[in-house]
Amino acid sequence: MVARKIGRQTLAFQNPPVITGTASVVGPKEGDGPLGRSFDVVKQDSILGEMTWEKAESCMMYEASLLAVKKAGLAVDEVDLFLGGDLLNQIICCNFTARDLSIPFFGLYNACATFTEGLALGSALVDAGFARHVLVGACSHHETAERQYRYPTEFANQRPPTAHWTATAAGAAVLSASGKGPRITHATVGRVVDMGLKDPNDMGSCMAPAAAETIWQHFQDTGFRGEDYDLVVTGDLGGVGKGLAGDLLAKSGYDLSDRLHDCGIMIYDPAQGVNAGGSGAGCSAAVFSGYLVKRLLAGEIHRLLLVATGSLHSPTSYQQGESIPGIAHAITIQGEEVQG
Amino acid sequence: MVARKIGRQTLAFQNPPVITGTASVVGPKEGDGPLGRSFDVVKQDSILGEMTWEKAESCMMYEASLLAVKKAGLAVDEVDLFLGGDLLNQIICCNFTARDLSIPFFGLYNACATFTEGLALGSALVDAGFARHVLVGACSHHETAERQYRYPTEFANQRPPTAHWTATAAGAAVLSASGKGPRITHATVGRVVDMGLKDPNDMGSCMAPAAAETIWQHFQDTGFRGEDYDLVVTGDLGGVGKGLAGDLLAKSGYDLSDRLHDCGIMIYDPAQGVNAGGSGAGCSAAVFSGYLVKRLLAGEIHRLLLVATGSLHSPTSYQQGESIPGIAHAITIQGEEVQG
Repeated sequence: MVARKIGRQTLAFQNPPVITGTASVVGPKEGDGPLGRSFDVVKQDSILGEMTWEKAESCMMYEASLLAVKKAGLAVDEVDLFLGGDLLNQIICCNFTARDLSIPFFGLYNACATFTEGLALGSALVDAGFARHVLVGACSHHETAERQYRYPTEFANQRPPTAHWTATAAGAAVLSASGKGPRITHATVGRVVDMGLKDPNDMGSCMAPAAAETIWQHFQDTGFRGEDYDLVVTGDLGGVGKGLAGDLLAKSGYDLSDRLHDCGIMIYDPAQGVNAGGSGAGCSAAVFSGYLVKRLLAGEIHRLLLVATGSLHSPTSYQQGESIPGIAHAITIQGEEVQG
Repeated sequence: MVARKIGRQTLAFQNPPVITGTASVVGPKEGDGPLGRSFDVVKQDSILGEMTWEKAESCMMYEASLLAVKKAGLAVDEVDLFLGGDLLNQIICCNFTARDLSIPFFGLYNACATFTEGLALGSALVDAGFARHVLVGACSHHETAERQYRYPTEFANQRPPTAHWTATAAGAAVLSASGKGPRITHATVGRVVDMGLKDPNDMGSCMAPAAAETIWQHFQDTGFRGEDYDLVVTGDLGGVGKGLAGDLLAKSGYDLSDRLHDCGIMIYDPAQGVNAGGSGAGCSAAVFSGYLVKRLLAGEIHRLLLVATGSLHSPTSYQQGESIPGIAHAITIQGEEVQG
């Protein structure tokens, strides 16, 4: 009766959408990191000649969107829907990108899990025939996020070891009903998990339980086991949160220690002074759209579980003493050579 | 090939989802308005005994959600997905509601068009069998919105005649694959339209072109004409924006003057001092979930086009001199007695 839902929380695609094009646009620090060469565009600075950081972030989202559509072999007006979001209040970067693209738009917000939220919803829409091509995008920017969530960077406040470094990055992917490329077969939609933690300088710990729960539920719903995946990549738990999530999973019977990675750890070298690692809606979006998709296309990864994680607080809720709930959505992506 | 898309921007549901339950929870001013008796719950004050307005708004969203699920004859854990959003930074009211409901969650943001965004996406997910029951919700609160977008209400700033009054209201609807109730047959997904206007105290004018474009596109895509609808209800253009949208539609060949209404006008009496009318993501959500759905159930409305409109700016983008783009999504809802 509910033909495309399996288990408690997983969407199973009958006509798995194809990722026909992706693009990543990052700032200089991300370009200097270990994955620098895999990004499509590395900016020389993070203001891009604009008057504001927010405008620069919007420009990166727009550029990544155009490039993803181009790499999918499409014109912009062939894309049926744009699903996107970012960390800024009222998701203004994606609003302005949607305006400039002029593609019918659904705005999303699940913090740093927004990219996988978009992949889940976009895949559902393509699978069921509501759209032939859907563009999914997410972005973040160090300077815009720091001043909105914490302090302006000019303030040069000290950052504890558990703090993350918001990535200056935009990632975009085109999901299509047909074509060549990796396919999205399943999406496990996360519930909001709140362990009562309250430190916005330790988001990894806040999000780790949500990541572990979604991955556990994914295995329960689908019957996949750890060894069915070459990589399980969270984003962005950082060094603190990844350890916690790994421990929680091991205790519940899934020891993924040989294949669990994290976008927030992968995008920077520890010598770059990022403390616990990267974060930001653009981090997992760019790591997937720039790096992971190339490994899928090269056949180095056969099946990937991408589990972007989001921290669902605001400065207001934090200042009012509320806890910081987390969410994570898991997406199964398999190389085109994988059968079934 | 794209079986469920018609025209350029319209999703056509093959198994039109049923609205099996709705609920509305509003503040005292909304309870005193012309639709007061149609709301399920009218609060005696807008703080609800909580320590903060934000907490009060979250409580209203949670209460409306629980009541909608109950009226649909369901237990909370029978609902597969929750799609919701609000006007607060990082949509914290819906985040906390999703946490307390513990239903898998997709966070949405299209400003005051969020409720119809949710109806469109929720209908697609139910129609295609990704979910049996989806909960859609949106809310807003006068005090939380005023201080976040403009000034704290204690400041008592003067409001120009074009300004809107953010409604203290939450609306929620359960969409189901089967059951009794009105059905959602089509959703026209809006593009972001920007005419270069910049006045956050005249959002009606900013959003009117988006409303007119989406309604025009809806008629083009579906072949419906004005007379196929008993009511075309925008939300929330207010007195200024509704006039503009009506003029734009009349000039493009669709004179809807005898059936065009607006949630922002309907929810208050002009004597309540709301200037151009109501607004807020909760306004159209509550007017639909409280008032319009009852008229559909009573057979007084046979077919309704609900066109919630959103203003996609932030205080930051406005202060940086950016224009205010608008968006509108149109949803066709028909009484259960209507054939095909």
